[in-house]
Amino acid sequence: MRFLHTSDWHLGRLFHGIHLTSDQAHVLDQFLALVRESKPDGIIIAGDIYDRAVPPIEAVELLNQLISQILVDYKVPTIMIAGNHDSAERLGFGSRLLAAQGLYVAGALRREIEPIILYDEHGPVYFAPLTYGEPAFVRERLSCPDVSNHEQAIEAMVQHVIRKIPNKARSVAIAHAFIAGSLESESERPLSIGGSSMVKGAVFQPFCYTALGHLHNSQQAGNPSIHYSGSLLKYSFAEAFQRKGIHLIEMDKVGGITVERISLSPRRDVRCIKGYFKDILNHSIDQGNQQDYVSVTLLDEMPILDAMGKLREKYPNVLQIESPRFLKKGVLSGLPRDHRKLSEKELFAAFYHQMTGENMTQEQQMHLVDVIETVYREEREAIL
Amino acid sequence: MRFLHTSDWHLGRLFHGIHLTSDQAHVLDQFLALVRESKPDGIIIAGDIYDRAVPPIEAVELLNQLISQILVDYKVPTIMIAGNHDSAERLGFGSRLLAAQGLYVAGALRREIEPIILYDEHGPVYFAPLTYGEPAFVRERLSCPDVSNHEQAIEAMVQHVIRKIPNKARSVAIAHAFIAGSLESESERPLSIGGSSMVKGAVFQPFCYTALGHLHNSQQAGNPSIHYSGSLLKYSFAEAFQRKGIHLIEMDKVGGITVERISLSPRRDVRCIKGYFKDILNHSIDQGNQQDYVSVTLLDEMPILDAMGKLREKYPNVLQIESPRFLKKGVLSGLPRDHRKLSEKELFAAFYHQMTGENMTQEQQMHLVDVIETVYREEREAIL
Repeated sequence: MRFLHTSDWHLGRLFHGIHLTSDQAHVLDQFLALVRESKPDGIIIAGDIYDRAVPPIEAVELLNQLISQILVDYKVPTIMIAGNHDSAERLGFGSRLLAAQGLYVAGALRREIEPIILYDEHGPVYFAPLTYGEPAFVRERLSCPDVSNHEQAIEAMVQHVIRKIPNKARSVAIAHAFIAGSLESESERPLSIGGSSMVKGAVFQPFCYTALGHLHNSQQAGNPSIHYSGSLLKYSFAEAFQRKGIHLIEMDKVGGITVERISLSPRRDVRCIKGYFKDILNHSIDQGNQQDYVSVTLLDEMPILDAMGKLREKYPNVLQIESPRFLKKGVLSGLPRDHRKLSEKELFAAFYHQMTGENMTQEQQMHLVDVIETVYREEREAIL
Repeated sequence: MRFLHTSDWHLGRLFHGIHLTSDQAHVLDQFLALVRESKPDGIIIAGDIYDRAVPPIEAVELLNQLISQILVDYKVPTIMIAGNHDSAERLGFGSRLLAAQGLYVAGALRREIEPIILYDEHGPVYFAPLTYGEPAFVRERLSCPDVSNHEQAIEAMVQHVIRKIPNKARSVAIAHAFIAGSLESESERPLSIGGSSMVKGAVFQPFCYTALGHLHNSQQAGNPSIHYSGSLLKYSFAEAFQRKGIHLIEMDKVGGITVERISLSPRRDVRCIKGYFKDILNHSIDQGNQQDYVSVTLLDEMPILDAMGKLREKYPNVLQIESPRFLKKGVLSGLPRDHRKLSEKELFAAFYHQMTGENMTQEQQMHLVDVIETVYREEREAIL
């Protein structure tokens, strides 16, 4: 059996204020071509299909078109589970009807988890859709009073579903989880605040292959049969050096697997460029595509007026500028952390110090208070 | 052919702050029983399935369960169009796949409107799903540059689809529109602000039956072949005297129709009660179900302390109290309309006048200004 494993599409994502829908459509076109050419027996999407519970309409339409083509035109059965970014209930709308068309959506966890069975010439393969759920929700739905963390939640789901899979049958788990020892990026939303979200890979021991979602870095998770496909695109500058793609899995008649990673080419790459301002502007640092989404780290020690505006002339999609040396010199060190707790007077004094390196004189301070009081008085008189 | 016509479910609706989902589930259970017993060849839902573009999860789950039962368990083909409350794109998710299961969802208008064909022993019946769309959107999608109002939009859709329906075939139009001369309630959201939203009934002349949504009052719209089924429930007190229900249409072999109105029983009715406060509390006015959603009109001329709290002891779901005579006496007439435009001093003076019937003395006014200024000064000092 041949199937594709992908995850973490995050349709509808914003990246530093930029809507990524057309970037996502660009790589999903390649995904569709891959489906057409590789003729898989099935497709797995391991959660975080959407970036948020209520995705923008453009994201809904993009998925709708894609899914229609995969199912109606190419007739490839597709299994998707909800991730922690999806609204499981909204994702699961129509799932009973859609299953009859070969689209298996595991939305909100139900009291029974049913394996999905796909066939090849050697017989059935059982896919266990372990949709994402909070431990408390899994505890209630599966009536497992001992479930109090993510590992126990996944274990409970595995134990529940494994009873429905014949002994020695070929089987695949699909889950959205954080496997202990795996590499995080900065763009995953933590699964739990406080308690541990770590799951040991051993819980997936019964399965020939485990198709994971959640972590954005494509990676093997401990055991050679457990894999993160990684996200569709780079969703943070911390992912700039990660490879993104799709897993193509070939499973033999006894459940042995080979995993091939297939790269997709984004419309715009996500890259980090480091150097002195004038070198970056003079083209001497970077030879890459100037349309890429770029984070620039300036080595200059002095502030540069309108650095963003000037860099945009060369890199229209520069999204972030960092100036670590400028900061290191302590020019900004005068500002206490939480500016919301400061009075107007303190806030202005801190700003004055940053800009001039000196403290305000007594006279200046008195003048400032005078100005502030005048503003307040005039405001009040406008009200009364 | 026998089919059911319903519309304006407004799943997820709030009524004076109360979530109506369980009330909606209550009547939809009866609808489901009606489907089971009447064994229709099809079901039409003529728009406003949800109350808003992003319905609450409970509403999504309610529709999901209902639709699954109708399609999977009872296997009754169902046609729904988007209304002006629905997000056409969200409603249309998966529509290509769902159509194969007998759920025909006309979401956002496409370049081609395809009639849906259902069969009985006499042959085909063509259903034209004229989904709701702004005139400008219809103009663009159907490439009809002359469309500038709702009537022209519907006309353009009719002309477009009628070419795909054989001459003399039996046909049904499904639309979400405001037919000229029909009776509005207060709870419909206007289709257009400014320009006319009126559509003349004659545009539906080619069809044997026209199943309308939008107006909440169940009614014939001019011609005996054009009907509003009305909303699922009473969604405003102005609808208190309307009957709500479902239309059961029998179409003979030449397209002749009979329309039967079938009533559903709400969990709680929506009612208006009028009388003196003490009579209402003494049970001498009203013999209806005390759990109903109630609007009380008090005939008393004097204000009553905590009228809402006291009425709730008898009517736990009283949602609104009106006191027209109390208002008429002019007790509240001292208050200009937009209190946001008043200064604190003016606002308090108006309140003082309402409560005492007299104007503040010069001395009182000076004292008030003093108090207000002290408050502002202390606030300002806390900031500085």
